[in-house]
Amino acid sequence: MRSTTFDAALAIDESDAPFGLRWSPSEWESLSLDCAARTRYEVRFGESLAQSEALAAAVGDRKALLVTTPTVHRHHGAAIQSALRGTNTVATLVLNAREETKCVEQVEAICAEALSRGINRRGLLISFGGGVCSDLVTLAASLIRRGIGHIRVPTTLIGQIDAGIGLKGAVNFAGKKSFLGCFHPPEQVFIDPAFLRSLPRRFLVAGLAEVIKMGIVRDARLFELVESRGLDLVMSGFDAPAAEGRELLQRSIWAMLDELRGNPYEDQGYERLVDFGHTFSPALEAALGFEVQHGEAVAIDMALSSAIAKTLGWIDAGVWQRIVNTLRTVSLPLSSGRLDLQLCRNALVEACRHRGGAINLVIPAGIGRATFLRRRSDVPDPVLEEALALLAREATGNA
Amino acid sequence: MRSTTFDAALAIDESDAPFGLRWSPSEWESLSLDCAARTRYEVRFGESLAQSEALAAAVGDRKALLVTTPTVHRHHGAAIQSALRGTNTVATLVLNAREETKCVEQVEAICAEALSRGINRRGLLISFGGGVCSDLVTLAASLIRRGIGHIRVPTTLIGQIDAGIGLKGAVNFAGKKSFLGCFHPPEQVFIDPAFLRSLPRRFLVAGLAEVIKMGIVRDARLFELVESRGLDLVMSGFDAPAAEGRELLQRSIWAMLDELRGNPYEDQGYERLVDFGHTFSPALEAALGFEVQHGEAVAIDMALSSAIAKTLGWIDAGVWQRIVNTLRTVSLPLSSGRLDLQLCRNALVEACRHRGGAINLVIPAGIGRATFLRRRSDVPDPVLEEALALLAREATGNA
Repeated sequence: MRSTTFDAALAIDESDAPFGLRWSPSEWESLSLDCAARTRYEVRFGESLAQSEALAAAVGDRKALLVTTPTVHRHHGAAIQSALRGTNTVATLVLNAREETKCVEQVEAICAEALSRGINRRGLLISFGGGVCSDLVTLAASLIRRGIGHIRVPTTLIGQIDAGIGLKGAVNFAGKKSFLGCFHPPEQVFIDPAFLRSLPRRFLVAGLAEVIKMGIVRDARLFELVESRGLDLVMSGFDAPAAEGRELLQRSIWAMLDELRGNPYEDQGYERLVDFGHTFSPALEAALGFEVQHGEAVAIDMALSSAIAKTLGWIDAGVWQRIVNTLRTVSLPLSSGRLDLQLCRNALVEACRHRGGAINLVIPAGIGRATFLRRRSDVPDPVLEEALALLAREATGNA
Repeated sequence: MRSTTFDAALAIDESDAPFGLRWSPSEWESLSLDCAARTRYEVRFGESLAQSEALAAAVGDRKALLVTTPTVHRHHGAAIQSALRGTNTVATLVLNAREETKCVEQVEAICAEALSRGINRRGLLISFGGGVCSDLVTLAASLIRRGIGHIRVPTTLIGQIDAGIGLKGAVNFAGKKSFLGCFHPPEQVFIDPAFLRSLPRRFLVAGLAEVIKMGIVRDARLFELVESRGLDLVMSGFDAPAAEGRELLQRSIWAMLDELRGNPYEDQGYERLVDFGHTFSPALEAALGFEVQHGEAVAIDMALSSAIAKTLGWIDAGVWQRIVNTLRTVSLPLSSGRLDLQLCRNALVEACRHRGGAINLVIPAGIGRATFLRRRSDVPDPVLEEALALLAREATGNA
């Protein structure tokens, strides 16, 4: 096959044009196009967003639609209006954005509002809420006129250190979690710990699960911050101890951006440390019908994955105890009545489908270190059963 | 503002991590992420796809879902099955894909079929049909698991030289043409002129409108091919004269890829030569409720834009006559009863919204050359009225 590649670095004049490419049944000749999308976005830290000029400056003179949730609107509606003073924010759409309603119809509701408000290609969506809100807004922004800008102001811990700082948006579809989605980087993300003060403790705790995840797989200091200060931070709404709370946020965000860096579109292989805690949890969430918080399911998955690591000899009893004790200290669950061998087997089949043919189960190899189990045969059923039994003993206090 | 940029070329160790970023209400500090998506795709030319190994080789061992339309399935179902022999193509979804049904629900139908057939992240969609079919499949592929691969086998002229070789997918939404969409490059596009033989002449003619467009704005030789051979090619289903028909296809595709090259995601400015014929036509299509072929609306738009060019002195009477005569020769319309001043004014408002605040009306400056009218004031109402009158005289034979 002869092939001619369009290269953005070359000027093309007609003499280069390959109009003589042969047409034959045996050899298909080709033209090709290199198309690189280059994007850069910022995660910004500060205090008192309501009094700051930062958000208004990011919006500039563009027409913007603010999307938020009832609870966030009630608690922080005045703060965001203050932060947006002087901007051309034409409407606030209050959406009942919950995991169980994260569907195509809600994305369509955002798109319809944007259309009726005359949001043009220079226009902007602003998501002000938790991970579900930013998932919906990201997907809507990616679709409207084939992609408009969006800015995120995450108000939950999980939003500030995980869902809100990545490139992804998604909705659930036909019973399948996040089956439809996109990669559509935000322009900027604003992180103000003040929004965490009003967050119910259960949500803070769920967010801490993702912090613990990053601590276990790559940042021992981050794990120690949760181990020693996690409970205080939960009880104070991340207000005290302030310095450690802020270090915890920055370390978590740094870790996430650093993990995203090498593979932002997840097309450079399927081995991702951030998948720790995310292999068995989707099946668990599906089985529990969204009664469980995402972070709680992640905690159970981390406990099981650590039990597998313990069973296979990748971690010793001391590391195992530090992990389960830290989860327990911040009131994260270790197990669930729905967690059984069959669920685990199904989850590994699904992981394999999602991860290009390998299970790529992330298990700890210490605190701040992890490894991948790639093949299904690396986790034979007897190992799963022993790990489940270890976990059950630990969860019921019969360790 | 102090700022730290993650750079993919740098290794990061913890000493670089900026955990000391200040938190203050006045200065928001930041981390940022550079994320480049790099994609390359091929447009391949050949004869007798049904007998060739080319498509099967492109699919490889991946699980694929074929999406087609009733007419294409009837005419060419056996040919595509032959081209896909030996592949793991698990199902054929026959969708009634027409411009008036190009909606979110049809994209959902493709996604649901992919989910039920177990298409995984390595899986593939294959679109086999015209521009609407590839629009739907492209958008579905971009959404499924946040983006899976797709291959196109366009069966219409417009698909082979325009809709099928770009990066875009879209659906109509809330009465707005292509309001929701994506940029999601195909892996490969297979161009076999044999599929054009069974195409109704009206569809071939509609496709020629886009060829004429490229000829007028950038390739005089391409325009001459249509001018001299357009009618023969329409009458023969692009079979004769064969050499000129194939040169016409390759020149059109080359021109389109070359135009895409500098601005594949349409984020590098809003001045696009390929927008010639696409300023007034969306409003016309909306007004006529999809009774008009896209290419026919484009032809009317090109005739009006050329009349504006003539009125403003950008082209002389000779060029004007070559353009309208060529449109007429291949039976493309020059005007419509619904084309009036108000429709044109509304279309320019909408173009301005879609093109970042400038109308960027493309008008010919000769055969193979074009220019942009950027401001609304470059096309004052009296000019529009004079151009409409010129067009009406030409269309009714009273020139």
